Amino acid sequence: MEVYLDNNATTVVDPKVYEEMKPFFCDIYGNPNSLHKFGSGTHPKMVEALNFLYAGINAADEDDVIITANATESNNTVIKGIWIDKILNGDKKHIITSEVEHPAITATCKFLESQGVAVTYLPVNEDGVLEASLVRDFIKEDTALVTIMWANNETGKIFPIKEIGAICKEFGVPFHTDATQAIGKVTVDVQDCNVDYLSFSAHKFHGPKGVGGLYIRKGFGLTPLLHGGEQMGGLRAGTVDVASMVGMGWAMKLATSTMAIAYEKNHVSKLRDKLENAILELPETVVIGGKDNRTPNTTLISFRGVEGESMLWDLNQNGIGASTGSACASEDLEANPVMNAFGSDSELAHTGVRFSLSRFNTEEQIDYAINVIKNAVTRLRGISSSYAYTPSCHKSSL
Amino acid sequence: MEVYLDNNATTVVDPKVYEEMKPFFCDIYGNPNSLHKFGSGTHPKMVEALNFLYAGINAADEDDVIITANATESNNTVIKGIWIDKILNGDKKHIITSEVEHPAITATCKFLESQGVAVTYLPVNEDGVLEASLVRDFIKEDTALVTIMWANNETGKIFPIKEIGAICKEFGVPFHTDATQAIGKVTVDVQDCNVDYLSFSAHKFHGPKGVGGLYIRKGFGLTPLLHGGEQMGGLRAGTVDVASMVGMGWAMKLATSTMAIAYEKNHVSKLRDKLENAILELPETVVIGGKDNRTPNTTLISFRGVEGESMLWDLNQNGIGASTGSACASEDLEANPVMNAFGSDSELAHTGVRFSLSRFNTEEQIDYAINVIKNAVTRLRGISSSYAYTPSCHKSSL
Ligand SMILES: Cc1ncc(COP(=O)(O)O)c(C=O)c1O
Ligand SMILES: Cc1ncc(COP(=O)(O)O)c(C=O)c1O
Repeated sequence: MEVYLDNNATTVVDPKVYEEMKPFFCDIYGNPNSLHKFGSGTHPKMVEALNFLYAGINAADEDDVIITANATESNNTVIKGIWIDKILNGDKKHIITSEVEHPAITATCKFLESQGVAVTYLPVNEDGVLEASLVRDFIKEDTALVTIMWANNETGKIFPIKEIGAICKEFGVPFHTDATQAIGKVTVDVQDCNVDYLSFSAHKFHGPKGVGGLYIRKGFGLTPLLHGGEQMGGLRAGTVDVASMVGMGWAMKLATSTMAIAYEKNHVSKLRDKLENAILELPETVVIGGKDNRTPNTTLISFRGVEGESMLWDLNQNGIGASTGSACASEDLEANPVMNAFGSDSELAHTGVRFSLSRFNTEEQIDYAINVIKNAVTRLRGISSSYAYTPSCHKSSL
Repeated sequence: MEVYLDNNATTVVDPKVYEEMKPFFCDIYGNPNSLHKFGSGTHPKMVEALNFLYAGINAADEDDVIITANATESNNTVIKGIWIDKILNGDKKHIITSEVEHPAITATCKFLESQGVAVTYLPVNEDGVLEASLVRDFIKEDTALVTIMWANNETGKIFPIKEIGAICKEFGVPFHTDATQAIGKVTVDVQDCNVDYLSFSAHKFHGPKGVGGLYIRKGFGLTPLLHGGEQMGGLRAGTVDVASMVGMGWAMKLATSTMAIAYEKNHVSKLRDKLENAILELPETVVIGGKDNRTPNTTLISFRGVEGESMLWDLNQNGIGASTGSACASEDLEANPVMNAFGSDSELAHTGVRFSLSRFNTEEQIDYAINVIKNAVTRLRGISSSYAYTPSCHKSSL
């Protein structure tokens, strides 16, 4: 059996989404900016897609939602745009973020530090959540931007975006949130939460890879990351990828309907909980950050004495795909930065395995996975020297 | 009949290319960076695609070809990377480009000027070609980059890239070329031409929209435009769009084989010439920049006394798609900047229509187009006040 439990890394394209994309490769192929039917033939479905995107995050009509290549581009657009406009060419000097952002945020912030910008990395508490009051503590006169993710990619922990939005508004500081792991999992509402910029990537919610979005509140326009043609009202140049835009629109619609969010909450979370509870029957296993306040599809579990990488290998042999952390860091074997940030003892740092489900997983798959995981843990603890020497070793009971 | 003659704006995806892309939406959907079969299942076709990309531009194994969203991103990556590395954090101050680059270059250079960078915009000669010796005249101690397009999008004029490459090498200045309109039309060889950076966009050579490439010679690494994960060796972060990368690889292979380039030269150019010669039978029509030294598929023709936009409208009514210039500027009605640069008299500035063909055009289509165009010119000159007052009016002969 094949069981894909790595939906925070990427997701399968929903067949319905793919159906909508199909005509835009070989049939309706014009450039939307062209002044002829080949171009304008793309418009109705693009407008429809844009409406779905606005609706999915409750953007106001006067705001912008621009099409980018992915959340990485959206994040870079905001952080570098703010750098150029408010720091290089303004009088601000400081950015606030968290210690557990995705590399698309942290690497960009590190780059800004190399250019003399002051960056505050707020820590998360022992539950893996950022406390909104910390933002208030660190916000300053010269703060140019607060950027905090909506939901963490490794633990699924949901951050207090509404509270942070209110604080930023109070201090008049622009607020960006990387909502890549929130779309389709929880309700995302930019108006309710006073978000000024919001990033997402279609392939995390059953849309195609290579396309993302950036919400920009009216009045918060930025120097673009991609200069060139006048696409996206001058906010992002480059020929619009019609097929991907249409696909992302449909993916957004399918993922963010009331029914879809209810399905995540009631069904996907049930499967996740079933998997998690079965794993927790094994001794010396722990859910990193605890069970509260998470996206319905994610669990990051530490198996004491088991290298995460070895576990992945075993699972893979049995047709199961999971992860030790965000895929873009998977090729090196550094300790999971989120687990470090959570303050797991260093012995646990390499033992986390992330299971992330989707609406395409079935109960049968989960039953199969539980069985494989239990066997893998037994096998790996059996040959693990680190586990053998762990004082609180429960090996005999396995 | 439908006749698409706007292939410099964008092209239809070759059905063979689309076939290769298909499995990567709903079947082989893993994240290439993931440590399981869902991820590694993408690798063979990605490696194959990368090999096609290297072969298509004759890149050396030790060089990089990174996957971007489009030529706009590739161009911005080079120019802004150079800005950050050599100007903001170095001792260079100056960039050389031409007056007839695509907005993805000029708008980026204008942005750099707003940041205090000196930019020299070299003019083209009366044939619309940039003379290589001008680069030698303007290159300086503090020149950080020379960026000159391989072929012009509006006229198809081919620039002396090999000579410019040699001059840049002699002076030790990095050389970037925007080859977006050259790939698949003429032979592009980065080694032979001493190119250090080269940009392209798949949708200009029958690949999908939303994916492009950037060639980077070994030793010419740059601060990335997209910071984040370690994809593309750290040169361009963001989850790789596997379907599009595979599509671009195949599009490159199909467009740059010896046979394909010969087909452009022998067949596409014949159709273009047939169209052009028939149009030139009409009085007061002229090929902007003349016929020499062009990509085989392009002609930019001025019809005295006929607004380009009116012409497009007439053609569109008859199922023909053409352009007055690069699509990304089409929505405003400014005079075509290339025609201005060529020094066309201002009366001609709004009268250019670009026809750009592809290997998918047929002789039957061209015969039909000739007929429609001739009728359109007659009709429009009949109602054109500007043409009526033109002293050298040939209206009676139409
Ligand atoms: C929270 C978060 N932000 C950004 C990204 C980057 O997404 P993409 O690779 O599509 O740019 C990811 C994907 O791993 C993510 O989980
Ligand atoms: C010469 C040239 N450069 C760059 C571009 C931009 O291509 P894209 O819109 O795919 O980024 C174009 C497309 O019109 C072009 O003709």
